[in-house]
Amino acid sequence: MQKIDKEQYLINSLTSEHIGDDAAVIGDTLYSMDAFFEDTHFKREWMSLTQIARKAMLVNISDAVAMNAKPKYALVTLSLPHDIKDYEIELLTEALESTAKEFGCEIIGGDTIGGDKLHLSITIISKSDDPLFRTGLKEGDMLAYTGVLGESLANLQALMQGEKIDENAKFYEPLLRVEFVEKARSFLRVGMDISDGLYCDTNKLLDINKYGKEDLLLIDDNIGLSGEEYEMLIGFDPVHLETLKKIAEETGTPLTVFAKVTKNSERYPCKSHHF
Amino acid sequence: MQKIDKEQYLINSLTSEHIGDDAAVIGDTLYSMDAFFEDTHFKREWMSLTQIARKAMLVNISDAVAMNAKPKYALVTLSLPHDIKDYEIELLTEALESTAKEFGCEIIGGDTIGGDKLHLSITIISKSDDPLFRTGLKEGDMLAYTGVLGESLANLQALMQGEKIDENAKFYEPLLRVEFVEKARSFLRVGMDISDGLYCDTNKLLDINKYGKEDLLLIDDNIGLSGEEYEMLIGFDPVHLETLKKIAEETGTPLTVFAKVTKNSERYPCKSHHF
Repeated sequence: MQKIDKEQYLINSLTSEHIGDDAAVIGDTLYSMDAFFEDTHFKREWMSLTQIARKAMLVNISDAVAMNAKPKYALVTLSLPHDIKDYEIELLTEALESTAKEFGCEIIGGDTIGGDKLHLSITIISKSDDPLFRTGLKEGDMLAYTGVLGESLANLQALMQGEKIDENAKFYEPLLRVEFVEKARSFLRVGMDISDGLYCDTNKLLDINKYGKEDLLLIDDNIGLSGEEYEMLIGFDPVHLETLKKIAEETGTPLTVFAKVTKNSERYPCKSHHF
Repeated sequence: MQKIDKEQYLINSLTSEHIGDDAAVIGDTLYSMDAFFEDTHFKREWMSLTQIARKAMLVNISDAVAMNAKPKYALVTLSLPHDIKDYEIELLTEALESTAKEFGCEIIGGDTIGGDKLHLSITIISKSDDPLFRTGLKEGDMLAYTGVLGESLANLQALMQGEKIDENAKFYEPLLRVEFVEKARSFLRVGMDISDGLYCDTNKLLDINKYGKEDLLLIDDNIGLSGEEYEMLIGFDPVHLETLKKIAEETGTPLTVFAKVTKNSERYPCKSHHF
């Protein structure tokens, strides 16, 4: 809870009208920034340096993808432990650059400092002529999520118990729904990526739009509380359901409708996913 | 030495042509990012939260100012210690926003996480139709710095010995040379802010431009090794010396010419200023 409360408190104390989405939109340019910090988002023993750098870049690019924007440039600030070796720095930069490049994004700057831990902060500059926002939900809209949720939480629990997980596990390799978002954009009312878990993120979406929900599906806690999924949470007019199902099928994207937007104040039991 | 070596190693291992200046320039937009981390850039007992937030923003805006750009937007990522109070978060955000505002800059986004320490990463998006770069020095150019150097190092030494320093001390309140840079721009060949100390930053400037220097003035180590000054290091054609002196006088900017650019490989004895 702590994380979300403090973040919300801080967001509320800032005055800019641009704050509240995955990225700030100025004209056709979107700006987003996320931290990927040791002992907050990962433990060193859980991941190789390549995996750390790759995931840091993926979760940042996810903000752009979630808003139907194309990532163009990245800035990376690295806090490097003092005992880090040159070849380890190379592993980090190689993974950062190659991951960015997969999405058409170039690292153009940043900062490097010595510290006690390995912390990454990344800023993504992206472009969109039709960004997908969090606001705009209407009564009767349907809420759905992409993909299969739950794996990230299961991965995290395994890691915390000292177990190994597969190198393709979602905790290492979140799957960004680039093609789905692009094709679905004009049929969507709102969208965001699922970083704090379906429960918390749906609550956030309903809070911003001042609506409640009616469950169309019972969501298991293993699904609702799984954070860092980076799947999409979307809201749309039910008239587009069949079109969206088609796009989901074409793009190999599982799509689950789980709730309907109503005028009540119902919320999910949101709990922080951070360890 | 560690900090600079690792940073240089990392910069060298990145492939973008945009890397190497205080900010990356894409069209008329400049992007810069700097970390301001607890126990790397400051200790909590040295500064109030307001001072920490203000300095973090100032040193970031300095990158834009040093390139003759106007800061427009900022993204701030905050790692907040778990025991931080709501009113303390307010102190931080108030100082961040008011400092940004002084320079015409708006905080439009960022990220907040819980961590063991107070770390800030800031990205500045700025605009310039005539950015001042680090490259372009010519043989015979003069090198000069603005302001009075040395105070930041003296402040740091006092703080490390447990002494108090004045609340207007340079370590708390770096002075950005906005007006001087703006007026002097067209008479300057190169420029950068002095963050690692005059010695180290002059070496960096000479390295990039593949020149050496001839001393016109003996620089004391107390001056040359004083980092985080955020004064300007500039290079210019000697024909502009009188014009620049006039601009310096008009804008209340002390200006000290200290070296001449030559074809040797002379460097200063650069030592890291980080504690």
